[in-house]
Amino acid sequence: MQRFVMRRAAALSSSLYRLLLACLCLSLCLDAAAARPADEDGYRLWLRYATLPAAQRAQVPAGRTASLAPDSPTVCAARAELQRGLDGLLGRPSGPADDNTVTDGGIVLARAADLPADAAVQPRLRVLGSEGYLVERTRLRGQEVTLVAANTDVGLLYGSFAWLRALQTGTALPQASSPALARRLLDHWDNLDRTVERGYAGESIWNWWELPGIVDPRYTDYARANASLGINGAVLNNVNAKAEVLGAPFIAKAAAVAAVLRPYGIRVYLSVRWSTPLELKQTRSADPLDPEVAAWWRSKADEIYRTIPDFGGFLVKANSEGQPGPQDYGRNHADGANMLARALAPHGGVVMWRAFVYNPASHPIKAVDKNSDRAAQAYDQFKPLDGKFDANVIVQVKNGPIDFQPREPVHPLFGAMPATPLMMEFQITKEYLGFATHLAYLGPLFQEALRFDTRAGGHAVTVAQALEGKQAGKVGGIAGVANIGSSRTWSGSDFDQANWYAFGRMAWDPTLDAGAVAREWAQQTWSQDVRVTAPVVDLMMRSREAVVDYMTPLGLHHMMGTGHHHGPAPWVDNLERPDWNPVYYHRAARDGIGFARGAVGSNALAQYAPEVARRFADPATTPPAFLLWFHHLPWTYRMPSGRSLWDELVAHYDRGVAEAAAMQAEWERVRPLVDARRGADVAQRLARQREEAQWWRDACLAYFQQVNGLPLPPGSRPPAHPLEDYRALAFPYAPGHG
Amino acid sequence: MQRFVMRRAAALSSSLYRLLLACLCLSLCLDAAAARPADEDGYRLWLRYATLPAAQRAQVPAGRTASLAPDSPTVCAARAELQRGLDGLLGRPSGPADDNTVTDGGIVLARAADLPADAAVQPRLRVLGSEGYLVERTRLRGQEVTLVAANTDVGLLYGSFAWLRALQTGTALPQASSPALARRLLDHWDNLDRTVERGYAGESIWNWWELPGIVDPRYTDYARANASLGINGAVLNNVNAKAEVLGAPFIAKAAAVAAVLRPYGIRVYLSVRWSTPLELKQTRSADPLDPEVAAWWRSKADEIYRTIPDFGGFLVKANSEGQPGPQDYGRNHADGANMLARALAPHGGVVMWRAFVYNPASHPIKAVDKNSDRAAQAYDQFKPLDGKFDANVIVQVKNGPIDFQPREPVHPLFGAMPATPLMMEFQITKEYLGFATHLAYLGPLFQEALRFDTRAGGHAVTVAQALEGKQAGKVGGIAGVANIGSSRTWSGSDFDQANWYAFGRMAWDPTLDAGAVAREWAQQTWSQDVRVTAPVVDLMMRSREAVVDYMTPLGLHHMMGTGHHHGPAPWVDNLERPDWNPVYYHRAARDGIGFARGAVGSNALAQYAPEVARRFADPATTPPAFLLWFHHLPWTYRMPSGRSLWDELVAHYDRGVAEAAAMQAEWERVRPLVDARRGADVAQRLARQREEAQWWRDACLAYFQQVNGLPLPPGSRPPAHPLEDYRALAFPYAPGHG
Repeated sequence: MQRFVMRRAAALSSSLYRLLLACLCLSLCLDAAAARPADEDGYRLWLRYATLPAAQRAQVPAGRTASLAPDSPTVCAARAELQRGLDGLLGRPSGPADDNTVTDGGIVLARAADLPADAAVQPRLRVLGSEGYLVERTRLRGQEVTLVAANTDVGLLYGSFAWLRALQTGTALPQASSPALARRLLDHWDNLDRTVERGYAGESIWNWWELPGIVDPRYTDYARANASLGINGAVLNNVNAKAEVLGAPFIAKAAAVAAVLRPYGIRVYLSVRWSTPLELKQTRSADPLDPEVAAWWRSKADEIYRTIPDFGGFLVKANSEGQPGPQDYGRNHADGANMLARALAPHGGVVMWRAFVYNPASHPIKAVDKNSDRAAQAYDQFKPLDGKFDANVIVQVKNGPIDFQPREPVHPLFGAMPATPLMMEFQITKEYLGFATHLAYLGPLFQEALRFDTRAGGHAVTVAQALEGKQAGKVGGIAGVANIGSSRTWSGSDFDQANWYAFGRMAWDPTLDAGAVAREWAQQTWSQDVRVTAPVVDLMMRSREAVVDYMTPLGLHHMMGTGHHHGPAPWVDNLERPDWNPVYYHRAARDGIGFARGAVGSNALAQYAPEVARRFADPATTPPAFLLWFHHLPWTYRMPSGRSLWDELVAHYDRGVAEAAAMQAEWERVRPLVDARRGADVAQRLARQREEAQWWRDACLAYFQQVNGLPLPPGSRPPAHPLEDYRALAFPYAPGHG
Repeated sequence: MQRFVMRRAAALSSSLYRLLLACLCLSLCLDAAAARPADEDGYRLWLRYATLPAAQRAQVPAGRTASLAPDSPTVCAARAELQRGLDGLLGRPSGPADDNTVTDGGIVLARAADLPADAAVQPRLRVLGSEGYLVERTRLRGQEVTLVAANTDVGLLYGSFAWLRALQTGTALPQASSPALARRLLDHWDNLDRTVERGYAGESIWNWWELPGIVDPRYTDYARANASLGINGAVLNNVNAKAEVLGAPFIAKAAAVAAVLRPYGIRVYLSVRWSTPLELKQTRSADPLDPEVAAWWRSKADEIYRTIPDFGGFLVKANSEGQPGPQDYGRNHADGANMLARALAPHGGVVMWRAFVYNPASHPIKAVDKNSDRAAQAYDQFKPLDGKFDANVIVQVKNGPIDFQPREPVHPLFGAMPATPLMMEFQITKEYLGFATHLAYLGPLFQEALRFDTRAGGHAVTVAQALEGKQAGKVGGIAGVANIGSSRTWSGSDFDQANWYAFGRMAWDPTLDAGAVAREWAQQTWSQDVRVTAPVVDLMMRSREAVVDYMTPLGLHHMMGTGHHHGPAPWVDNLERPDWNPVYYHRAARDGIGFARGAVGSNALAQYAPEVARRFADPATTPPAFLLWFHHLPWTYRMPSGRSLWDELVAHYDRGVAEAAAMQAEWERVRPLVDARRGADVAQRLARQREEAQWWRDACLAYFQQVNGLPLPPGSRPPAHPLEDYRALAFPYAPGHG
């Protein structure tokens, strides 16, 4: 162990040397710096509005911005953004002062109501709904203008952002779009002491201590960034909520945030703790059927809406991982959700009730046996309740049945609740994908889940369509667990910003292609230069698969270190609950590896639609990416590649390490074309990712070899250290604890 | 309670309204913005280098910078700073490329060794020592130049910063200066999980998780800011230290920080936990006289110096507040300090051993009796050890005998350890002075302590002179507990930056005047305009006394809330140790108030030199500011003002509240002349300060009235709420916990 640690320490001396050299060369750098783009610190996200190349610049109508819509905070925000954007893109020092005169070559903001009833655009506006927009070149009042039109003020704001994005991505007009899902939310797992559970980007951006009196201007930039993507809600606090959240001082703080977000079309929501009234000693119970309890919540809802008139509603984690809930009183999730929903309904609020539940009293997992499967618990509890929820309850389901793994099959509930509006819960912060130190673009993960065909009712129904209520008209939503903190880059690294971006864009349009989203992000965030964007997109698109390969290939899952989830720990077998142990999930033994979830195992497979279940029931028709998720197979099992399962597993780990190295090499080619500061930061992170990919591969293979006694295939390098060295590593100060 | 909280919540609705209005006026703001200075976010501290007014600009020699000293990381840093500074001050887009040709009107950096041996400047350089500098206009190689000269590279860096400062403050040349104290340190109370004990400016700037491979460019700006003041050391971690600090992974992280700070003349130090080798299971004891223990520390010191060749040494908190120490083995502080010192001595390192000790086994405080006095403990333990410490041990003493109160008399040890080098420990972070939400400029506090005449040996010896070893040739140092974090403003607010600045400037020259330091800070941080600087300096200079008045006037102390030290809690009487309770310190009772520390009390007064003790022994000759620190007096005691003690106390509380209101009003007059963003932030903080000043005053007076049963003097308003409302307030999520 000490040896290993020393080696890790020694490996760093080279980076120290580079640092020293960098200092020695300061004076040279002073001269050389001019040749590269000016340093940036990532704060401006994809809203940098860097000056366009001259040829593109010439195409941009740069006239005055006129708004036919009366000034409102939202319209003002749209105008301010257009001015900021055009000033940047055109490289003009300061835009012309705008009045509301429609001029030739100008930009016009107009709602349907501001335009003549017989204007040609009206029929196209009618189908856009309350948030859609349309941007086109047209004639208005005799002038050639760029028209940003919508039915509402927030549509104008979204349209303004869309046009600025189109200018930077070379997208042709007209552009018309409206969102598929009504609720597109960020879930902040931010605590009241400003720590962030699973946060890798500094403290919470919400400075609760200073709110409500001291309002950080950063909240406005947060709102701009979200509005630019169409995100229209924010749950401000952790799902592991505290009772104090519903005290008057905290409601005042939330109201101050809501006041900043409101002009940007973003509603504020709160996570609430089930037992709040009981803990505040204001009721004698937390039984959802106790009238005193229901009355308390009604009165609390009234109090909140007096302060935050457009409050969005509650997010609830109940009877899960030790949180209290209605089952403590012999009631079910619908009893609990409906009681809260009735308190919020008069004000138009909703309850988002999480289906991430495990180890309730009904499902004690006492030992590793074939019938106990944490993956099956949510379905077992929620499926019987389909149709029993009030209209303003949305059941929020994680993308996979376990917990935000690098890869999971889709959660079976998405195909199983036709009478209930569902909300997708993605995790943008990378709890299990290397925190903010590994580059892993999540666009492909989101896409994989959203496009999965549930075959619900025997029909083609993608997860996205299930959320949109294509099947039964129950429109749901989508939430992303935010990766935003107080760090200067917002997300802990430049590339982690892409996951916020991709979530927001795909929340607006779940059919978007992950690669196309990566490209538009890169164009706005890094450069218009295709010598930059092409390799950046390539890097991004291989990155998530690289992580899967060096962490948990072929359907393996949950082999991360205890608690913090940093690094490999497949050997852990001594935690209190069997389903907290990695050995529960991979089940590696002398005879083979993998979790049997078919008929011979937990039969969780039966929770999917029959067509899906049939495909996954047979190892031969199960996609290799999910093989060990559904099957326990001998190490010698013959893979489609012709290799044995063991050799294939090793090949995946090796490929993961090779990909991490390739990503590093690819960045070195991009680096001279971007600013030195961001270029160096990415390079430092990729170096660490490569080092940790090797660590993952070596530790996992050393462990599996101890279990199966098999040699590595020829040409594959033995792990750098003995297994006990990896087992001895400890990370008591890892970030992200709640 | 609920009522009170609701009122507080309601009071905020006005600020929400202001926010809404601000949004509504966005479009107006767009036009109006041009008239005010551009928004700033405080990141650039006092190194903004804002363009000088034209008249001043014309005076600045703006020729090339030439260095006769060979390029080194430090010389390069000086040149880079001169270029950055002059570009900013002169408003030129990018300075001319420098070579090393001495040109007319140019700037020349030269060490004594780079100049002719018979140059006129040589005798003046000889007295500057290894860190001093000289800046003057002179002829060199036939050209009129500005010469920055020193004996060392770091002297050139300090001189460069000094010249840039002189340009902004209108200070005439020549300027020559060298520091009075060899060690001028920041103590970071930063934990390995990136929380900061008593930190109110976000997380630690040290991103331990990402170090050593990922190096935040912010560390360089930290180094620049410190070098601009002459701070030459940083203790990276909390005095409540963890054993892991001395593990190889952490040493590598500290080394990466050291590599960034080194060119700026800043050495890295570490706080160490006494029991480290025992906890790491590498020794069987932590007895300082056990050869195995001493050998472990020698080997550990060798290991550190292999990685950090200029490592500064250890800071130790031992046998204090539950920390382990040599007394656990029946040894004394000198035994412990000397053992560590001998491990460091071969490498030139020092041990800074803290005298902040209380409740060791020798001083159990079991009840409030006249002989138990926490204020007396450090002296009792350390005075007998004077002369027993090795040459490379420095005893580090807090400015006052209790704990960083808004006002304390000077610690008696400063006049009592002639044979021991002493280090002053100030607290820059405002644990007891309103965190980062109250404006309290600490320059006057520093000055009050440094200029205090100890009368040691019957002579005039100020504390500063005692530190400088004027008495016995034992040169000590000065440390400030940093208020730096990852917040964009570094210090949690713009005005808190002034405390970092004042500490650094007064560490270099302890004779500096607090008002003059405030002025130069304001000139660099806010504006050259006297319409800004005059009121800003006025505000600053009244601020600390305002805090004393509304928190703890007339020598009262330690009446803050339990643990977090936020807000008033004079009623607390139920904590485990008597000397953790506010009632232990104020001793308010029916008969009177105050802590008797003279002959009729704890006799802590006898620890001062006789002349000092005599003055403080008689209430009539005790300065009113320290009255209740040293004396328990009847409420009816007649004050010099003619008022009763009770009426005087109320008058002080009222004055504190009035001052907080006056500060707010004064800022509103400055605000139109500074940028909108910083202007609004300060205004929001002053509004909260005023509200909390009122809270302090009302809660304390309500409590004292309950104790003494006396009416308020005519014209003084009764507290806004009953005492129980104040007692019921709780702050479980206050920042700054360790």
